Amino acid sequence: MHILIIGAAGMVGRKLTDKLVAEGHLGGKAITQLTLADVVAPAAPEGFPGKAETLTVDLSAPETATRLAAGRPDVIYHLAAIVSGEAEADFEKGYRINLDGTRHLFEAIRQEGLRKDAPDQPYKPRVVFTSSIAVFGAPFPDKIGDEFFTAPLTSYGTQKAIGELLLSDYSRRGFFDGIGIRLPTICIRPGKPNKAASGFFSNILREPLVGQEAVLPVSPDVRHWFASPRSAVGFLLHAGTLDLARLGWRRNLNMPGLSATVGEEIESLRRLAGDKAVALIRTEPDETITRIVDGWAQDFDARRALELGFKADATFDDIIRAHVEDELGGRIGG
Amino acid sequence: MHILIIGAAGMVGRKLTDKLVAEGHLGGKAITQLTLADVVAPAAPEGFPGKAETLTVDLSAPETATRLAAGRPDVIYHLAAIVSGEAEADFEKGYRINLDGTRHLFEAIRQEGLRKDAPDQPYKPRVVFTSSIAVFGAPFPDKIGDEFFTAPLTSYGTQKAIGELLLSDYSRRGFFDGIGIRLPTICIRPGKPNKAASGFFSNILREPLVGQEAVLPVSPDVRHWFASPRSAVGFLLHAGTLDLARLGWRRNLNMPGLSATVGEEIESLRRLAGDKAVALIRTEPDETITRIVDGWAQDFDARRALELGFKADATFDDIIRAHVEDELGGRIGG
Repeated sequence: MHILIIGAAGMVGRKLTDKLVAEGHLGGKAITQLTLADVVAPAAPEGFPGKAETLTVDLSAPETATRLAAGRPDVIYHLAAIVSGEAEADFEKGYRINLDGTRHLFEAIRQEGLRKDAPDQPYKPRVVFTSSIAVFGAPFPDKIGDEFFTAPLTSYGTQKAIGELLLSDYSRRGFFDGIGIRLPTICIRPGKPNKAASGFFSNILREPLVGQEAVLPVSPDVRHWFASPRSAVGFLLHAGTLDLARLGWRRNLNMPGLSATVGEEIESLRRLAGDKAVALIRTEPDETITRIVDGWAQDFDARRALELGFKADATFDDIIRAHVEDELGGRIGG
Repeated sequence: MHILIIGAAGMVGRKLTDKLVAEGHLGGKAITQLTLADVVAPAAPEGFPGKAETLTVDLSAPETATRLAAGRPDVIYHLAAIVSGEAEADFEKGYRINLDGTRHLFEAIRQEGLRKDAPDQPYKPRVVFTSSIAVFGAPFPDKIGDEFFTAPLTSYGTQKAIGELLLSDYSRRGFFDGIGIRLPTICIRPGKPNKAASGFFSNILREPLVGQEAVLPVSPDVRHWFASPRSAVGFLLHAGTLDLARLGWRRNLNMPGLSATVGEEIESLRRLAGDKAVALIRTEPDETITRIVDGWAQDFDARRALELGFKADATFDDIIRAHVEDELGGRIGG
């Protein structure tokens, strides 16, 4: 089978690629071809025996989507997006990439299926779209259920919610078989500290685990919704193979996650890395970040996704352990 | 003040125009200019003393929206849409008019506000967008609340739900001050019987009231959500004047309505027009229509809209009386 990953150079895209190459199959079918596309050059998949292509392309140009669909991939992972902060800072760029880019892709798939001069069989790929809990806006219930409305408070959340609606309608009309998965905040995000408002949730664990200081800008009682990178890749694999008829036409799902406070994160760090690691967290209250984070979802009842077999991290200790295994070769300390 | 009505030639557009002309003001401000736009030629507003312009234009052409926004109307009523059945039959036309047309309009307003060579004052009009209960898809709770999610089962409902998301985001970003109102099924719809699946709800009252036969294709226990044309115009006037800061950024509201069964409609007809009128209703069960109607919302708890001062019809007798007064000159019978 041929798998296309759009947004393959991002953190989740790279981990998904690695996992697909390691497994060699998806849903019992051998992976014979991989196409990796991103606006920055994706790395060639290491150790992949099949046909591999890497493309440096901009999805907001309509011809990009046409070219990608012409390859008739069986499964399309659409992970590409500009992030929340940038979509808020640059209104037009956010709509061009997150909305128009997604619509071009869906429309190109439809057009490929309508081609009169097309190969023998009809074309109706699986499309897995990464949405976000940013489709929800405060105020929230204590736990957000599967039928809570999307009233986003960012342009990014708006663009993701529109992508979800298009995905459901294109699926219902039979143009592809789509599923949208709303990812929790990924923690521990590997790499360097970044300026995303949510960065501290990862920073306060990732940096002390290698003996570095980290800044905590909010109160320890702040609660949020998390999944490890390993769980996120698990969601994507399951979304790529699950029988989507089980979803009816409600194709967008809150992924399961772990609801935890910053204080619980810190206690977990203490259990696994000791007081010395916790002492590296410096509290520097930041009103702006506190205000932003106050508007974020804290907890979900992700019943549908759990019933459909999506699996979350059970404890924060598991989240930290996964990071130590996957990123630090099993070794804690500076 | 200058009011623009897009979709002015439709039933609701004509009634809104008549009402605005009769009142002469909106929210205490004199109406000095009316622009009526539609894809079919709107009638000139009768008896309007101010400046009036009628435009026969297609909103799916981007230059149309630019032209409409250049007139800097203070209030814009965006009622234009192709209906559910047509949007389902012609996928591309539905998206072109209901989605692209709406987005062109919102974007043209934003661009007008950004113009460097613009008149002295900034431009930030009120935008009233008519959405629909078609943004919801079965299965429903017994009463749909204000936070129930939009999972439409038609392309029309999808396009309206996307328009709502855009409206909220453009409002939040400060480009205009928008409100989306989800209209119940309008009953009694004046005019001739049409082929809309919902037509029978009106037909079985309107036709017998003038001594004509009508066909009932569903069981009398079918329940649905209604508003009279008079109430719909009332919603639009209130949406044009209400302080929208009271809505926060949740700018799309279920309008209040009347939940009633077909049997209750018929008993109301019997009270006001007698057994002779009811005898004109011929039952001809239609499986297709029954199946479509089974997927429609039946009842709402429209608390937010009621608290914000939107007013619904109290009884089906009121709905029939409004029709007799407004369309039949007070006279029942053939």
